[in-house]
Amino acid sequence: MYINGKAWRSIWLEKDGQTVGIIDQTRLPHQFKTVQLLSADDAVTAIRDMLVRGAPLIGATAAWGVFLGLQEDSSDKGLETVCTKLLAARPTAVNLRWAVERMRSVLAILPPKERVAAARSEAAALCEEDVQLNEAIGEQGLRLITEQYERKKRPINILTHCNAGWLATVDWGTALAPIYKAQAAGIPLHVWVDETRPRNQGAHLTAWELAAAGIEHRLIADNSGGHLMRQGRVDLCIVGSDRTTASGDVCNKIGTYLKALAAADNKVPFYVALPSSTIDWDLTDGMAIPIEERAEEEVLFVFGQAEDGSIQKVRIAPEQTRASNLAFDVTPARLVTGLITERGVCAASKEGLLELFPEQG
Amino acid sequence: MYINGKAWRSIWLEKDGQTVGIIDQTRLPHQFKTVQLLSADDAVTAIRDMLVRGAPLIGATAAWGVFLGLQEDSSDKGLETVCTKLLAARPTAVNLRWAVERMRSVLAILPPKERVAAARSEAAALCEEDVQLNEAIGEQGLRLITEQYERKKRPINILTHCNAGWLATVDWGTALAPIYKAQAAGIPLHVWVDETRPRNQGAHLTAWELAAAGIEHRLIADNSGGHLMRQGRVDLCIVGSDRTTASGDVCNKIGTYLKALAAADNKVPFYVALPSSTIDWDLTDGMAIPIEERAEEEVLFVFGQAEDGSIQKVRIAPEQTRASNLAFDVTPARLVTGLITERGVCAASKEGLLELFPEQG
Repeated sequence: MYINGKAWRSIWLEKDGQTVGIIDQTRLPHQFKTVQLLSADDAVTAIRDMLVRGAPLIGATAAWGVFLGLQEDSSDKGLETVCTKLLAARPTAVNLRWAVERMRSVLAILPPKERVAAARSEAAALCEEDVQLNEAIGEQGLRLITEQYERKKRPINILTHCNAGWLATVDWGTALAPIYKAQAAGIPLHVWVDETRPRNQGAHLTAWELAAAGIEHRLIADNSGGHLMRQGRVDLCIVGSDRTTASGDVCNKIGTYLKALAAADNKVPFYVALPSSTIDWDLTDGMAIPIEERAEEEVLFVFGQAEDGSIQKVRIAPEQTRASNLAFDVTPARLVTGLITERGVCAASKEGLLELFPEQG
Repeated sequence: MYINGKAWRSIWLEKDGQTVGIIDQTRLPHQFKTVQLLSADDAVTAIRDMLVRGAPLIGATAAWGVFLGLQEDSSDKGLETVCTKLLAARPTAVNLRWAVERMRSVLAILPPKERVAAARSEAAALCEEDVQLNEAIGEQGLRLITEQYERKKRPINILTHCNAGWLATVDWGTALAPIYKAQAAGIPLHVWVDETRPRNQGAHLTAWELAAAGIEHRLIADNSGGHLMRQGRVDLCIVGSDRTTASGDVCNKIGTYLKALAAADNKVPFYVALPSSTIDWDLTDGMAIPIEERAEEEVLFVFGQAEDGSIQKVRIAPEQTRASNLAFDVTPARLVTGLITERGVCAASKEGLLELFPEQG
């Protein structure tokens, strides 16, 4: 997507054809800095230290990490070493495993001397597929925004939670893809950006993406969305999904459920944008999804830019106070107006999903 | 209430009988510092710069401010000057006006030489009434916690939002009063403390109160309460109220409505603790209450303690990003299980309120 009018992706092959570029997302929104990955170890560090985050981008970085590793050693042992190393970078990331296994299965059957070139084209293909998938989600979601605009003939107010933007994928994003498509289509927009405590991905990343793209937006405390809906100041909600059950329950960033409740209470359409790869076809009850409890420090401390420009970590609670940090929640399908997938928009139900994905029936 | 075993109030007449002590709440939770108010101007500054906050405590500080002012000049002109000065400290605070008018009406009819002593006893009486009112709310709410404990025979998990504790009143608080009473009654408790963005009164003040009182608690992001309720980890919610309609709608800190929705969705009892002085008997529709929109900076910046111990203000959003800052929301009566008042617990409805306050019928 665009940063001050120039097109970027979140990851790219550098012009030398041998190294890979990324944006250091830990420095956003205060500093925009790109980093050149020279080795598989650099890719591991980028994933582990969260210079890149978001399941699709982690997968893409791992794919390029295999390419970087094979340039050092393209033997069977070299391939094995780089795959093991990358898989250990963030052990719970499903897309990371998926991307590494895809690379391995393509490359293992080739003679070592062909592996570097093949890894380059396979990583590039994986990224290209991610871009096309997200662009398709954007096109599908655009129809929902267009419909609202044609009816209301005024700027459309969209609320989003967390960051499901292009920074989380290779390009376009999921929840933000329809917004970028609507901007391109000339529809006037205004986005309410939930700051998304405790890690503030809304304030840090979504606000930055929208500012860079020149899309009108306001940052709000996570507490605000409910009353904004009561006041009629939200036309629709679009959020992402980390995992979706075959019955349409949505596991997403903590706080999503509260916004879905408010949307239902105020008859505001609540959409979830997701690539079908996040659908767990074996699971029907969202409450069966184990919810990660993350470190207390994420709640007790806040990162930000001090007046002298330095990035500081400040404590917001008393020394004796402990915290609890659920990373995700589950929004039951009954609160979801529709799922925006690459194949179309469907009801959040088994029947709705099977209409779009009959091969899963 | 207790700080490490020693009883405190949020405001007191110093032993000299002439000056007034307060806790500088702007320094909490990182520093506990008391401040001696020597003059009416000191009281004005304490209110204006929010060293004291919470409607009842603002009123109490204003009452003592009149006493301080009269020691400088107890003439009619002196009384007029101090009242005017105090009323301007935070012009929208209803309790401030109420307290100043009460002092004025008692003192204006007395000869100047009797006014200082009368102001001392009237301010003390006003504070004592506030303490008794809140203690009565505590006793009423205790019954609800006791009932849960007798049924469940395990620690009771209570979720609260913002700070409606003793720091907001002269003592006991409103929402926290039942919790202090339950602690005194030996009921094992655990409190989920919403951090309450954007001003973080939960993290700064409620967590500090509970830590000082030795009550088990965990700080959580405002996003978390919904999923905790879905997991069955919340037994009841108790929040305060800034303004309550005659029909039981509750205007309280932004985010209260979202927790009430989650409580209703999970059949968790949702109680609002309030002194009857916050009931607006002329108003029936909560959505008619004008909602203050506060400065964007409260959303864009976070205060906390840096590693070197200094209090720092850090920016969490990009420079170009603007914010929106609704201070309150309105929870419709249908989502409120009951209102805890000084006279008893009643349904959040006109009928429920009139049973306890028949004189308003």
